[in-house]
Amino acid sequence: MLLHILFLVGLVAEGMTGALAAGRQRMDLFGVAIIACATALGGGTIRDLMLGHYPLLWIEHLSYPLIVVAAAMGAVLFAPLMRYLSRLFLLLDAIGLVVFSIFGAERALAMGHGWMIAAIMAVVTGAFGGVLRDMLCQQVPLIFRKELYASVSFVVALIFIGLLHLGVAESLAAIVTLVVGITMRLMAIYFKWSMPTFHYQHPGH
Amino acid sequence: MLLHILFLVGLVAEGMTGALAAGRQRMDLFGVAIIACATALGGGTIRDLMLGHYPLLWIEHLSYPLIVVAAAMGAVLFAPLMRYLSRLFLLLDAIGLVVFSIFGAERALAMGHGWMIAAIMAVVTGAFGGVLRDMLCQQVPLIFRKELYASVSFVVALIFIGLLHLGVAESLAAIVTLVVGITMRLMAIYFKWSMPTFHYQHPGH
Amino acid sequence: MLLHILFLVGLVAEGMTGALAAGRQRMDLFGVAIIACATALGGGTIRDLMLGHYPLLWIEHLSYPLIVVAAAMGAVLFAPLMRYLSRLFLLLDAIGLVVFSIFGAERALAMGHGWMIAAIMAVVTGAFGGVLRDMLCQQVPLIFRKELYASVSFVVALIFIGLLHLGVAESLAAIVTLVVGITMRLMAIYFKWSMPTFHYQHPGH
Repeated sequence: MLLHILFLVGLVAEGMTGALAAGRQRMDLFGVAIIACATALGGGTIRDLMLGHYPLLWIEHLSYPLIVVAAAMGAVLFAPLMRYLSRLFLLLDAIGLVVFSIFGAERALAMGHGWMIAAIMAVVTGAFGGVLRDMLCQQVPLIFRKELYASVSFVVALIFIGLLHLGVAESLAAIVTLVVGITMRLMAIYFKWSMPTFHYQHPGH
Repeated sequence: MLLHILFLVGLVAEGMTGALAAGRQRMDLFGVAIIACATALGGGTIRDLMLGHYPLLWIEHLSYPLIVVAAAMGAVLFAPLMRYLSRLFLLLDAIGLVVFSIFGAERALAMGHGWMIAAIMAVVTGAFGGVLRDMLCQQVPLIFRKELYASVSFVVALIFIGLLHLGVAESLAAIVTLVVGITMRLMAIYFKWSMPTFHYQHPGH
Repeated sequence: MLLHILFLVGLVAEGMTGALAAGRQRMDLFGVAIIACATALGGGTIRDLMLGHYPLLWIEHLSYPLIVVAAAMGAVLFAPLMRYLSRLFLLLDAIGLVVFSIFGAERALAMGHGWMIAAIMAVVTGAFGGVLRDMLCQQVPLIFRKELYASVSFVVALIFIGLLHLGVAESLAAIVTLVVGITMRLMAIYFKWSMPTFHYQHPGH
C-alpha cells in the first residue's frame, strides 16, 4: 500500500530531523535516539493517549521505533551530507506531515469520532511530534511560527474527511489528499505563505 | 447552573491568557489557538489521562475548545484593550482557578477516589493548564513562583470535600467554596501573600 | 523485600534532587513539592500511561507521593548540608535508577509485553522523571548528555530479562541486576564513561 510506504518515509524523515535537533544540543547517541523517537512517534503517541487507544501505535508495531532509531543513526553517520539534502528533507517532511495527518484522522474516524475530532487528531498526529522535539530541545515550538504547518495538517484532514463523506473510496481520497497536501505545504515554503502572527508586548500576565 | 456558567467564564479567561502568552512569542494564529486550548483545557486533559477517564472532557464536549478558540481570537482582535483589563482578568482567572479545581475534585470523587487524590486532581485541573502554557512558551512555570495559586487550588478542594463530608448539599458546598476560594486568591494577590520560596545555589546536583 | 526498600530509597533520592532543581529556580514550597513528585514519580506515571495501566502507581499507593514530598521538604530544611552529601546522592540516585528500571521492566513483562517493550519501559521509568524535571525547570534534559544514565537503564533491563529468561528466580535476578547496574553507573561516573555525543551545527533543519 502506497500510503504505508509513505508513512515509513515520514518516520525516516521525522527521525532524522529529530536526530539533527538533538545534535544541535550535543546530545549523546542515546539522547539522539530518544529525541528521534519523540519526534517521529510522539504525535501518534499523544493522539493514542488522548483517544484512549491501546496498545499505542509503536507498542503494537515495534518495527516503527526500530526504523526511527536506524534513521537517526544514519543521520549521525552522514551528518556532513545533511546540509546538502535540506531541500530533499523539506519534501520528505511534507510527505510525513500529510501521511501522519491522514492516519491520525483515520484512527479517530475508525473509533467513531466526528470530523472535528478527526481534524484535531490529524493536527496532533502530524504536528505534535515536532512540538515535543522542540520542547525537549528547549526551543519555542517552531511549528507555531513557521510557514503553514499545523494548518496544512488541519486542511488535509478536512479534505480527506470531505472526500470520504462524498463517497470517494478511501484509497483514492488518500491519494488526492496526499497530492493536494504536499503541494500546499511546498508552495507555502516556496512562496513563504504564513498565517498572520500575533505579537503582544505587554508584560505581566 | 451557576457553576457551569462560571466554568465557561474560566474557559474564556484561560483561553485569553493563553493567547496573550502566545502573542508574546509572536506565534501565528494557529499557534495561538493551540496554546489557548493547552492553557484552558490542558489541566482537565492531564487529569482525565491520570484518572483514565475517557472520553476526555473536550472530546465529549466539543463546544469547549470552540469557546476557547473564539476567546483566543477575541484576545487577538482586542489586544490593545487587554492591558486596561488586567484587573478584570485577575478576577476571571481566579474564578476559573476555583471552578476548575472544584470540577477536578468532583470528577475524582465521582470515580470513587479518596479526598487526597481529589485534592491532587483539583490542583492538576486548576493549575496544570498554566504549567503546560509556560512550558510551551519556554518559561519556568509561573505558578510555582507566584502568589498562592496552586495552593489555593489545594485548599479549595479541601474545603469543598470537607463540606460534602459534613453533609452539606453539593450546590451549597460549591458556592461556599467558590466565595472562599476567590476571596483567598484575590487577597493573596492584593496583599502579596506567598508561600516561602526555596533558593538553592549549589551547582551540580 | 529488599527491592521494595531500595525503591523507597530511590523515591527519597529522586524527590530530593527534584527539590534542589526547584530551589535553583527559586520556586515556592508548593512548586518544590510538585517538581519533586514529577522527578520521582513522573517516569512511572508516563510508563503507566503508555501501557494503559490504571490506576497509576501513585494513585494506587498514596504513600509514595507523601514520601516524596517529605523528602523534598527534608531537602529544603537541610539544604546547607546538601553540598556535602553530593557523593552520597550519586549513590542513592544510582540505586533509584536501577530499581526504577527493574520495576519498569517487570510491569511491562507482567502485562504480557516482550523484552524490547520491557527494556523501553525500564528507560521510561528510570530516566523520564529526570527529563520531566529538567523540562519543568527549563533545562535541556541532562540525561541525554551526561555519563551513561538512560543507557544504564536499558542495559539493566536486558540483564534482568536475560536472567529471567535463563530461568533464574526473580528475586535473585533482581539482586544480580542491582549489583551490576549500580556498579556500572558508579564506574561510569568515576571513569567519566560516556556515550559518544553527536554535535551538529548546521542551522535550519
